[in-house]
Amino acid sequence: MDAREPRGMYFEDFEVGHTYTTPRRTITNTDIVNFACLSGDFNAPHVDWEFCKQQPYGEPIAHGPLVLAIAGGLSCQSGMNDGTVIAMMGVDEWRIHKPVKHGDTIEVAMTPIEKRLTSKAGQGIVVFNRDILNQHGETVHSMKSSNMYRCRP
Amino acid sequence: MDAREPRGMYFEDFEVGHTYTTPRRTITNTDIVNFACLSGDFNAPHVDWEFCKQQPYGEPIAHGPLVLAIAGGLSCQSGMNDGTVIAMMGVDEWRIHKPVKHGDTIEVAMTPIEKRLTSKAGQGIVVFNRDILNQHGETVHSMKSSNMYRCRP
Amino acid sequence: MDAREPRGMYFEDFEVGHTYTTPRRTITNTDIVNFACLSGDFNAPHVDWEFCKQQPYGEPIAHGPLVLAIAGGLSCQSGMNDGTVIAMMGVDEWRIHKPVKHGDTIEVAMTPIEKRLTSKAGQGIVVFNRDILNQHGETVHSMKSSNMYRCRP
Amino acid sequence: MDAREPRGMYFEDFEVGHTYTTPRRTITNTDIVNFACLSGDFNAPHVDWEFCKQQPYGEPIAHGPLVLAIAGGLSCQSGMNDGTVIAMMGVDEWRIHKPVKHGDTIEVAMTPIEKRLTSKAGQGIVVFNRDILNQHGETVHSMKSSNMYRCRP
Amino acid sequence: MDAREPRGMYFEDFEVGHTYTTPRRTITNTDIVNFACLSGDFNAPHVDWEFCKQQPYGEPIAHGPLVLAIAGGLSCQSGMNDGTVIAMMGVDEWRIHKPVKHGDTIEVAMTPIEKRLTSKAGQGIVVFNRDILNQHGETVHSMKSSNMYRCRP
Amino acid sequence: MDAREPRGMYFEDFEVGHTYTTPRRTITNTDIVNFACLSGDFNAPHVDWEFCKQQPYGEPIAHGPLVLAIAGGLSCQSGMNDGTVIAMMGVDEWRIHKPVKHGDTIEVAMTPIEKRLTSKAGQGIVVFNRDILNQHGETVHSMKSSNMYRCRP
Repeated sequence: MDAREPRGMYFEDFEVGHTYTTPRRTITNTDIVNFACLSGDFNAPHVDWEFCKQQPYGEPIAHGPLVLAIAGGLSCQSGMNDGTVIAMMGVDEWRIHKPVKHGDTIEVAMTPIEKRLTSKAGQGIVVFNRDILNQHGETVHSMKSSNMYRCRP
Repeated sequence: MDAREPRGMYFEDFEVGHTYTTPRRTITNTDIVNFACLSGDFNAPHVDWEFCKQQPYGEPIAHGPLVLAIAGGLSCQSGMNDGTVIAMMGVDEWRIHKPVKHGDTIEVAMTPIEKRLTSKAGQGIVVFNRDILNQHGETVHSMKSSNMYRCRP
Repeated sequence: MDAREPRGMYFEDFEVGHTYTTPRRTITNTDIVNFACLSGDFNAPHVDWEFCKQQPYGEPIAHGPLVLAIAGGLSCQSGMNDGTVIAMMGVDEWRIHKPVKHGDTIEVAMTPIEKRLTSKAGQGIVVFNRDILNQHGETVHSMKSSNMYRCRP
Repeated sequence: MDAREPRGMYFEDFEVGHTYTTPRRTITNTDIVNFACLSGDFNAPHVDWEFCKQQPYGEPIAHGPLVLAIAGGLSCQSGMNDGTVIAMMGVDEWRIHKPVKHGDTIEVAMTPIEKRLTSKAGQGIVVFNRDILNQHGETVHSMKSSNMYRCRP
Repeated sequence: MDAREPRGMYFEDFEVGHTYTTPRRTITNTDIVNFACLSGDFNAPHVDWEFCKQQPYGEPIAHGPLVLAIAGGLSCQSGMNDGTVIAMMGVDEWRIHKPVKHGDTIEVAMTPIEKRLTSKAGQGIVVFNRDILNQHGETVHSMKSSNMYRCRP
Repeated sequence: MDAREPRGMYFEDFEVGHTYTTPRRTITNTDIVNFACLSGDFNAPHVDWEFCKQQPYGEPIAHGPLVLAIAGGLSCQSGMNDGTVIAMMGVDEWRIHKPVKHGDTIEVAMTPIEKRLTSKAGQGIVVFNRDILNQHGETVHSMKSSNMYRCRP
């Protein structure tokens, strides 16, 4: 934990099939309002309580991209990416399985399913099965996400 | 534009192969800082100017999920989804083609490539090719996204 | 809804005596706190719960200018102004009829009462009776507001 | 400045014809972006730099209600209203004279033009000429605003 | 309260042993979430409700530096520092005595315990005992803080 | 890095005399504005550009408590405290050595100078010399801070 050394995981450090998890964060009404504002997505399921009362979910639900955003922050806080991640490459098969509401606490479980070096030396791509779980252990979002990491110097 | 009537587009209104576009919004340093804060993603490419100066992009880049978030807001502002969208179903083949920086102005072009009714009456899924374009007309992100819409009553 | 064409209403499109309405948004404690912060208006009726408990309203009330701000956002989301509004000209007879609290859902009803072309070609002023309504259909704010719009090309 | 005593001005303290001024605050791009987000007003003059470049003002302009909001905050910081203001009653003849842009520094000059007691004892209404000035001493907004104040106990 | 004159207290105005107090503000969940975001401090006692339920405090607690930040804002709103404070010099013996939670209303009591002129003319340092109190009159934080103030011209 | 295990450092892990450092973050005008808003501290050195131009520092300076807040966030992102810190106990000898402005990039260097177990089993206090450094390696803030940590189970 010395100064200026990357603290994150290098390409070589990721083990295919092992599950890495993050700290947790509770999604609150404040987050839903703040995300509606930042994104400009004020669709009724997120900000119109009268509309929500008439829906099966009964109250505002977190925007899918809000859940994704916070999942990214949790990965940052896990320290996994500190100084070693180069870029987010893409996301596939992102599916939303259950609504996330005020008071739900999420964490992220990331399992490398594929690793490959790129044509450019010193970097490689890790493909993860990435599940976002709530406080009941239910998967609320799932996706495959690909990040490029530095190789160990 | 009368009160309480949905103003958005119903399932039947979407024409496969036609491209629908949104208003534009400029991504600023304020958005990058605010998104780092909201998401908790303070990785160096977004908030450490000294690190960024040593990278090919030279200055902070917008988080991929920030660009996605604002693209969702622009769809909301287009009025396309007002009172007619039911849910975001998922995203596939999300790819990031170019970095987005302070001062880049984005808009979204959405082209339905597939429509299908669901087993539940009164709703259908529209799959879009969704391109996020900058002020030079370059595609910065692309993805296939699936939304469920109400059918015309 | 093709690219780059204004989607809003031109000067000619507004019909005197017709009422145009917007989507709705629920005002939350988060909005009240965020507006106190952004504006710097931390007067006791908005942020001091102990003070509020001793007042007839019993809990924090939304700042009048917060309700006005969100009313403007709802007009934006209605699509009415997209690419066609030139400027806000002024407001007259703005009155606050009832307090707005956490959980109140507002919408805006705008009725043109006067239209006039200006000396400069291609633009005109529309004067609206603008009522902000809560979820019980009560008028919480009313005003006359004047906007300049582009004429149809 | 003892605890729990109102520090603001009572109805009796306001002198008709005297001008009271506030501290100053510079309006920044951050304020414009944050207000667009909080209000939901993402109209092109505020957030689309490509659009703004083609307008006479050349760059994003502060929303009128943003300038009003910050003017209210400056009155709060002046201490004028601390514990003595009861309610904002209304605004008349609000006019926008000049655009406010990133880097403009505003202050508020308030001149009571009318005072009257209300039928309910212990309170009175003060009507102000309220000018918002920029760093060049130019009036950017003007209005008549009416506040209800407590009478001196 | 005339224009451009400092409204705050000069070095000479502070009386050693006298207690100066501020307006009050209620700390809300929105403040806790917003501060976690702004600071990047997402430690479990502030944002993980499941973790908090298992702790003696049972629910998220305000970050110590959030309480300090709002205490500074309350001093600003008291008008004490307007145009007369030059700089914050330092803090000693800052202690946190009780947790602050959603709904707690705080105010600040500042008692000068020492005043000294500096070698540079026209300014002096005031050292305060600074107590932050909740709505039950309990001291939640205490510290000695030193500010430099202008002398009366 | 397995699920649910604390990832931070236990009381026993801290080595007296060793310096632990954090990731870096650039302080921007957005942070200064956002902190003025969140805290309510709108004193002239932070938000009045006309005032600042006449001071030695020439432009807005970051609030001292903003720098402290972000330093706390950087410790969180270092992973040092994840699941192991129990409470912030206090701060002594906090001194501000140089102003922090838009574009300054800070990091935190923490050196334990004292460790002691408490009368309650399973926890201990670590006292740190805590220096906040800018991109030139200059110490901008220094303090002694005391945190309570869990002992290794």
